[in-house]
Amino acid sequence: MNKFIPKYHFRKGLRHECEVIDLEHFCANNRKIILKPHRTNFNQLFYFHKAKGIHTVDFEDITLADNSLLFAPKDTVHRFDDKAEVSGVLLLFTDNFFCSNSQDSILLRNCVFHSNITQSTLIHIPEQNTVFDNVFGQIYREFDNEKDSVQADILRNYIRLLLLHFIREQISLPIFRNQSDNQDFELVRAFEDMLEQHYNSSPQVAYYCQSLNVTEKRLQTATRNILDQSPKEIIKDRIVLEAKRLLVYSSDSVKEISFRLGFDEPTNFTKFFKKSTGKSPMDFRSSQKND
Amino acid sequence: MNKFIPKYHFRKGLRHECEVIDLEHFCANNRKIILKPHRTNFNQLFYFHKAKGIHTVDFEDITLADNSLLFAPKDTVHRFDDKAEVSGVLLLFTDNFFCSNSQDSILLRNCVFHSNITQSTLIHIPEQNTVFDNVFGQIYREFDNEKDSVQADILRNYIRLLLLHFIREQISLPIFRNQSDNQDFELVRAFEDMLEQHYNSSPQVAYYCQSLNVTEKRLQTATRNILDQSPKEIIKDRIVLEAKRLLVYSSDSVKEISFRLGFDEPTNFTKFFKKSTGKSPMDFRSSQKND
Repeated sequence: MNKFIPKYHFRKGLRHECEVIDLEHFCANNRKIILKPHRTNFNQLFYFHKAKGIHTVDFEDITLADNSLLFAPKDTVHRFDDKAEVSGVLLLFTDNFFCSNSQDSILLRNCVFHSNITQSTLIHIPEQNTVFDNVFGQIYREFDNEKDSVQADILRNYIRLLLLHFIREQISLPIFRNQSDNQDFELVRAFEDMLEQHYNSSPQVAYYCQSLNVTEKRLQTATRNILDQSPKEIIKDRIVLEAKRLLVYSSDSVKEISFRLGFDEPTNFTKFFKKSTGKSPMDFRSSQKND
Repeated sequence: MNKFIPKYHFRKGLRHECEVIDLEHFCANNRKIILKPHRTNFNQLFYFHKAKGIHTVDFEDITLADNSLLFAPKDTVHRFDDKAEVSGVLLLFTDNFFCSNSQDSILLRNCVFHSNITQSTLIHIPEQNTVFDNVFGQIYREFDNEKDSVQADILRNYIRLLLLHFIREQISLPIFRNQSDNQDFELVRAFEDMLEQHYNSSPQVAYYCQSLNVTEKRLQTATRNILDQSPKEIIKDRIVLEAKRLLVYSSDSVKEISFRLGFDEPTNFTKFFKKSTGKSPMDFRSSQKND
C-alpha cells in the first residue's frame, strides 16, 4: 500500500502532452482516483459547466459552482468529495509541452500567483463570456485534425488564450479591480512573486524589503490593505503550505523536510509547524494518509 | 509631388499597434491611396470574403478570389487595380507590437518564406474551415473590451493563431503536401531561409552549400525538384526583388543601391539588373513612378 499521495503522470502515447477531456466521463472513469488525494505531473484547467460539491486543492476546501474555472498547477494535491457532481471539460498539459519560452513560464506562474492573492482558485465566468466555450471548441476541433508542423504551436496558443482569459477574470474581481491602480497592490504582487522564488532560503521580511527597496512598515501597510495579513504571516503561510505538500507527497523524513525548507534544526521546524497548524508534522502526515 | 512610392505608418493614438478593419469600408475610404503603389510600416493580413480584380504585391500581379488570405509583411509594395472589388477584413499590426520574442519573429518570417516557395501569397480557404471567421470574430469582440493588463497578450495570441493557420493552409497545398517528408524540400527551406539573411552579402552558391554542408550538385537537384530553378537563379531573383524595392521606394541613387546589394561596381549592378529585367535600373524606377 502506498502510504503517500499518489502522483499521476501524463498519459503516454498521445500526439502531444496536451489533452482535453469530458469532465463527467473523466470523473465516472476515475472515481477511485479522484476521491482520494492525488497529484499530477501536469497542469489542469477545470472548466465546470455544472458543478456542486467540494474539491479540495492543497488542503483548502473549494465549494464548486456552475460556470466556473479552476486552475491547478502540477504537483497540487487534489481531491473531490464523494458527493461532487460535475460536468464540463478538463484541459491537461505539461510544462514541457506548454513552456516554449520564458514568457510562457511567467504566464503559468501568474495564474497561480493571482490565485494566491484572491485566496481562492475558483473563478466564476459571467454568462455573457463565450470565450472559454469558443476556445475549448477550437481545441476539440484541432484534435480532429491530422498532426502537422504547426499543430503543437496552435495548441499552445489556445492554452495561452485560456490562461490569459482566466487571469482576466481574476483581475476583474473586486479585490483586483479596486486595487489594480494601487501602489499597495503592485507592491504585494512583487512581494508574492519574489516570495515564490525565495521562501525556502529567505524567511526574513527584511530580505524582501531590501530587495523591493521599501521599509518594513511600507510593506506591512500594503499587505494589510490588500490581504489583511502581515508580511511575516504571508511568508509563514507559504512555508507551511510547502511543508504540508512535502509531508504528504514525499516520503522524506521530517529532518530532510526541515532542511529543505531552510530550518537549521528539525526541532525548530517541528515547533514552527505545530504552532501554525496545531499538529506535529508526523501527525499531519498520518492524518492525510491515503488509506 | 512625391516621385517615389509613399510609405504609410501605423495610425497613431490607438490602444495597440494592432487593428482590424472592414475591407470594403477601408477600400472605399482609401481609394486614392490603394490604387497607387504604396507600402506600409506594418504587416497586413487580408482576409477576403468576396474578391475580384488584381492586387499587385511586390511587382507580381495576384488575381484575387473569394475566401482567400493574403499576407503582406511591412515594406511590401501594394496596389489594387481600379476594377478590384473586395469585402472581408484586414488585420494590421506592427512588428513592434507582435514580436514579443524571437519565436514570433521566426513565425512572421515563415509566413513570407512559405509564400516564396509557393510563388504566390494568395491562399484559398476551404469552405469548411471556420477558424479564420472565428478568430477574427474574437478579435473584433476583444476590441470592445476595456484595455487591461492582458489585452495586448490576448491580441498577440489571436494574431499568432491566424498566422499559424495561414501557414497550415500553405503547407497543405499540393507542392508542400507532396514534398513535406522530402529531404529536397527541407534543404530548399533551409537554403531560402539562409538566403533571406545573406543575399546582399553572399551572392555565391558556394557560400550556401558550404554553410548547409552539401555539394552544389545536391543543392541544384533539390531546387530543381522543388522549384524548377537553379540555386543561382533563386539567388538572382532575390537580389532583383530587393533592387526593385530599393529603386521604387527609396530615393537612393543607383550607385548607393548597387553598393547596398553587394556589387563592387555600379556598372556591374546595372548590367545584372538589365539582363534580369530587360530594363535599366533608372528605366525601371521611372516606369513605377507614382504619378
